[in-house]
Amino acid sequence: MEDLMAKFSGGEQRALARVISLVENESPEKDELLRRLYPRTGAAYIVGITGAPGSGKSSLVDRLTGLIRRAERTVGIVAVDPTSPFTGGALLGDRIRMQEHACDGGVFIRSMGTRGSLGGLARTTKDVIRVLDAFGFDYILVETVGVGQAELDIMHVADTTVVVLTPATGDSIQTIKAGIMEIADVFAVNKADLPGARKLAAEVEAMLDLKGTRPAWRPPVLLTSTVSGEGLEDLWAAVERHRAYLVEAGLFERRRQERARAEALEIADHRWQAMVRKHTELPGPVNELLARVEARELDPYTAAAEILQWVVSSSPLRGAGCGAG
Amino acid sequence: MEDLMAKFSGGEQRALARVISLVENESPEKDELLRRLYPRTGAAYIVGITGAPGSGKSSLVDRLTGLIRRAERTVGIVAVDPTSPFTGGALLGDRIRMQEHACDGGVFIRSMGTRGSLGGLARTTKDVIRVLDAFGFDYILVETVGVGQAELDIMHVADTTVVVLTPATGDSIQTIKAGIMEIADVFAVNKADLPGARKLAAEVEAMLDLKGTRPAWRPPVLLTSTVSGEGLEDLWAAVERHRAYLVEAGLFERRRQERARAEALEIADHRWQAMVRKHTELPGPVNELLARVEARELDPYTAAAEILQWVVSSSPLRGAGCGAG
Repeated sequence: MEDLMAKFSGGEQRALARVISLVENESPEKDELLRRLYPRTGAAYIVGITGAPGSGKSSLVDRLTGLIRRAERTVGIVAVDPTSPFTGGALLGDRIRMQEHACDGGVFIRSMGTRGSLGGLARTTKDVIRVLDAFGFDYILVETVGVGQAELDIMHVADTTVVVLTPATGDSIQTIKAGIMEIADVFAVNKADLPGARKLAAEVEAMLDLKGTRPAWRPPVLLTSTVSGEGLEDLWAAVERHRAYLVEAGLFERRRQERARAEALEIADHRWQAMVRKHTELPGPVNELLARVEARELDPYTAAAEILQWVVSSSPLRGAGCGAG
Repeated sequence: MEDLMAKFSGGEQRALARVISLVENESPEKDELLRRLYPRTGAAYIVGITGAPGSGKSSLVDRLTGLIRRAERTVGIVAVDPTSPFTGGALLGDRIRMQEHACDGGVFIRSMGTRGSLGGLARTTKDVIRVLDAFGFDYILVETVGVGQAELDIMHVADTTVVVLTPATGDSIQTIKAGIMEIADVFAVNKADLPGARKLAAEVEAMLDLKGTRPAWRPPVLLTSTVSGEGLEDLWAAVERHRAYLVEAGLFERRRQERARAEALEIADHRWQAMVRKHTELPGPVNELLARVEARELDPYTAAAEILQWVVSSSPLRGAGCGAG
């Protein structure tokens, strides 16, 4: 552990990869690692990039990475695709995408395939983002497929969220999910060279008009092309403008505080569930109660109350309240 | 309470509506009510009916209700639409739909709009289904919009799940979510008179062919029309056939056991979260810990461990382990 921490602090990417693996695999060292890394976190700016499969968000992330590197800032990338049935696919993706930035110590890419699921994909992804933050990257780009609740949860950690739309996959205002629209700080209408791109951008603007009262931040809508390079610098400028807005409005600090608070409660829930799960995997009162529920000898409401009571009273934690008990 | 229970047992629908309201509003009597009703549950057969908005599933539910009533069986209906921004919309829907079956004591309809959200929509819907079961309905039809995780969770309580597709809303195999396809026991291709219905049914069959190895139950695909009445009796016959299959294969009993077990654990989690939430709403150590996390004086991992410890040790439940505490 001390050796690993020393190498991590020294900026060795292999130590970073090792720490991420320990976190992903819910290893016993995980909690201690995250606790020790926490004081080093908070400096990275976290940008979420979400869109449907085929919207070209991976290419967009690659191009933005190039822009950030030219400005001599460093980038950690987390690509989340729980819809991919291939963990190997994610690994292969890593390798292909690493090629461009392979010799660049200022870039680190990690794909979360089905791997992060042991501790819950959203929970694990947040922990990995924190590790990258502690490692010292200036920016962390989090790329997710905008499909489910887990992705929306992940996006809550982003300071700025870019929603990528494209006419190529038949995106239209009707088919885009409400939850996705609400998290957008910036819209990128990608594959701008395709027919329909301008119309789609106009539809998004019209939808923003419909919201009525002038918001303090109206998400800009940018046409982008990773082929021609159109709009990429404007897109990044919009992200930086959103960052400045958040800081000036005092929202940057307030949102990070709210997030830290929510995260502490989320981790407490997660640990509670792990405690209960441990009981269900072993013979004992919890399993006896559950067997009685299965046999309809006991209703699930009474069983739940007794499980709660038993887990609480048999927990080593209870000692805090009643001596060595 | 005794008066209410007596009227409920006597089959008074007003008492049923009152019990459902107490459950939906997380009233103090809720736990006691559900506990007392539990021994009367288990006899109802629960059919889930899910599909996109515009697939005509409400009309389908109405027509199936007519069929069930003609066979002199009773029906409880729960309509869940969390996407509707109008609680009032759900209420209005109740009234319009009630008209047809208004004078029929063998039918009861309840819409869950945004109302059920206090205790979590999926959790509350399951409790309402249980109340209808205890009231003595032969069938419970649960109608949901197939959009999110909550709806998928609700469908886990159904013995048979009917997935409603239609060419009218542009449904095609490509646009239908994987999770929805996997929960289908029976497919209804509704609005069968529209062009594209037969093609859509063929696509579903082709998709089922693709699954390879012959499953013990292959979901039948039925063309239905609530206008002409085409396929409605076949659809209900398919539901009954699935029921017979589940019983014969021993799956009916096993699935209900697994569900009861999962439900007891879910209720225990829910109560744990309610305990924590209560602490966060009052001044005290939990809020002090959270304030230190917000100020970055404390990492969320350590805070989570201390919150867990504090909630456990200050819980009245701990008495079970160490005397009067």
